[in-house]
Amino acid sequence: MDFGLNFFPVITPERKSAAQYYQETIRLAVLAESLGFAHVQTVEHYGSPYGGYCPDPVALLAAVAARTSTIRLTTGAVIASFNHPLKTAARLAMLDNLSDGRLDAGFGRGFLPDEFAWFQVPMAQSRARFAEMLDACVALWSGQDVTWTGEFYRFGPVTLLPRPVQRPHPPVYVASATSAESCAAAGKAGHHLQVVPSVASREQLREMLAAYREAWASSGRPDRPRIQIKYTCYLSEDRAEALAAAELFERNYIAHMAGAVAGWAGARSDQYPGYEQFVDKVRRYDFDAALAATKVLAGTPAEVRDQLAAVAGWYGDDLTVSVQISPGHMPYEQSERALRLFADRVMAEV
Amino acid sequence: MDFGLNFFPVITPERKSAAQYYQETIRLAVLAESLGFAHVQTVEHYGSPYGGYCPDPVALLAAVAARTSTIRLTTGAVIASFNHPLKTAARLAMLDNLSDGRLDAGFGRGFLPDEFAWFQVPMAQSRARFAEMLDACVALWSGQDVTWTGEFYRFGPVTLLPRPVQRPHPPVYVASATSAESCAAAGKAGHHLQVVPSVASREQLREMLAAYREAWASSGRPDRPRIQIKYTCYLSEDRAEALAAAELFERNYIAHMAGAVAGWAGARSDQYPGYEQFVDKVRRYDFDAALAATKVLAGTPAEVRDQLAAVAGWYGDDLTVSVQISPGHMPYEQSERALRLFADRVMAEV
Repeated sequence: MDFGLNFFPVITPERKSAAQYYQETIRLAVLAESLGFAHVQTVEHYGSPYGGYCPDPVALLAAVAARTSTIRLTTGAVIASFNHPLKTAARLAMLDNLSDGRLDAGFGRGFLPDEFAWFQVPMAQSRARFAEMLDACVALWSGQDVTWTGEFYRFGPVTLLPRPVQRPHPPVYVASATSAESCAAAGKAGHHLQVVPSVASREQLREMLAAYREAWASSGRPDRPRIQIKYTCYLSEDRAEALAAAELFERNYIAHMAGAVAGWAGARSDQYPGYEQFVDKVRRYDFDAALAATKVLAGTPAEVRDQLAAVAGWYGDDLTVSVQISPGHMPYEQSERALRLFADRVMAEV
Repeated sequence: MDFGLNFFPVITPERKSAAQYYQETIRLAVLAESLGFAHVQTVEHYGSPYGGYCPDPVALLAAVAARTSTIRLTTGAVIASFNHPLKTAARLAMLDNLSDGRLDAGFGRGFLPDEFAWFQVPMAQSRARFAEMLDACVALWSGQDVTWTGEFYRFGPVTLLPRPVQRPHPPVYVASATSAESCAAAGKAGHHLQVVPSVASREQLREMLAAYREAWASSGRPDRPRIQIKYTCYLSEDRAEALAAAELFERNYIAHMAGAVAGWAGARSDQYPGYEQFVDKVRRYDFDAALAATKVLAGTPAEVRDQLAAVAGWYGDDLTVSVQISPGHMPYEQSERALRLFADRVMAEV
């Protein structure tokens, strides 16, 4: 197991300004590099406190790149449905150059009906757009004089600039929520994987990972797949303090998620089976049950080490665990304390 | 007059890698801040050595933001035709927060037929898209629960995140090439202006600026308009060295511009009157004539001071001159030397 640091801002301007949030994020990223974390990652969301402080992971990671020198930079994820592949490939190649080859390029389909409505993209196109985005980016990064004739985009011949540093192209990660089929497709294509245990059942996630690993193995690739698994972590020497923070910020997360997924009320999409239950799931959210099911990591260092051992048992010990340690509007000092404690007493001992 | 530093990369990977170019750009930007330059700016272009190292000014300026603290950051320019206003407003607001309120948001229409073709946007829409982009960004930055119903985009109600630091919104600059009408519209709307003397005749530019200043004055605004004027500058204590660099890098610029504007051969657009002559103009390029007409600044500090005095005479002494001091694949040490010389012997004495 190794570890990265995840930033998924769930914040309103009344709680913390974006300027302060970015400054703290960069400071934590610099510290994470010095503490031996493998990556920093962040998200793409729009127009709501649920992730809306980061509509562009490339911009925030470009700032992090300028202040770090070894830690990897992961988009977690760029949303294929809302971006043009020529622009996306070019911007990610900029980040690969700004960081001298430290980019992990994560892509997702997006899942919020409001965002699809604002960008006037039908959710029914999300799988096809995702597939086209990945293929086009790999083609643009790897090839010269690329002519693209896809379902959604036609361009070229064009030689992408800048050329990415990593050859033949930066590692591609596929963000998958619940679909074993998508995971198998990613494994077959030789893409790496990003998963989020809080949105899938333990059984679902085990099936997804099994399908992914099997597809990768069948493809006969000599190298090993990389799997990033994302957890929010509430850590303190004082168990009660850790659990109080967990309850406060998990409820904050769920409250803002409720607003962001409200568009699923009465909606249904065959490309998002089960998502119509999102509104209900959020309404029925049970903090104690989430804790008991290890949907978050929380407690003392010894407890979190035990939880990570359980995670390794369920999902494998070859994972990169991407921990969110500064959720919501948590004060900076509290985040830094938890980050240092995680490095000293969790990371160093698992 | 005050001064900014402009980065318009005209480079191939064979001459200098993008990783090296960005590293040098950031280093020069940090130095420019310490030397008292007012801004750093860069461009948006795709898929050719003519600007293609910077497909996203926001990403490069985000990295500069992380290493500077007072210098302003100017997009010169974001291309309205190729970007969604919700995404653009959000990304520029990120940059405004990453820099704690140092963004100057410059917008252009774009003018390269290849780029329009790749993004499948008709050039005939460029003025309408430009107007819609500016109005939508200002609305999103300034308002809450914005519902947008434009010719090209419909979205909302949405409250943009992050909120920009500068209130009611970051300064808007309109990049105008040759149209006095566009300049008048910008002045009337209270937008600032970016102009490029190398693409307009002296008489054209004087008419543009007169139309702009008159429209601004007629609008009754109490504050003054800001005008950025862009020059490439070749400076050395040794006149022959300055002119040799000018000839080398201006010819490099024109050679790559020829490739980028090739799409204008046989093309014609009523939204770009006269642009069909681009191919011919580039073919007939005459270095000595360009020098004699002060299309670039070149020579010893005393000569460049005289050239700037002439510029002030033609166009006004209230300009911000945005100088490109590191053109093409110029070696870093040569750029740094010229930058320091400009600060010491030109900026300090005009």
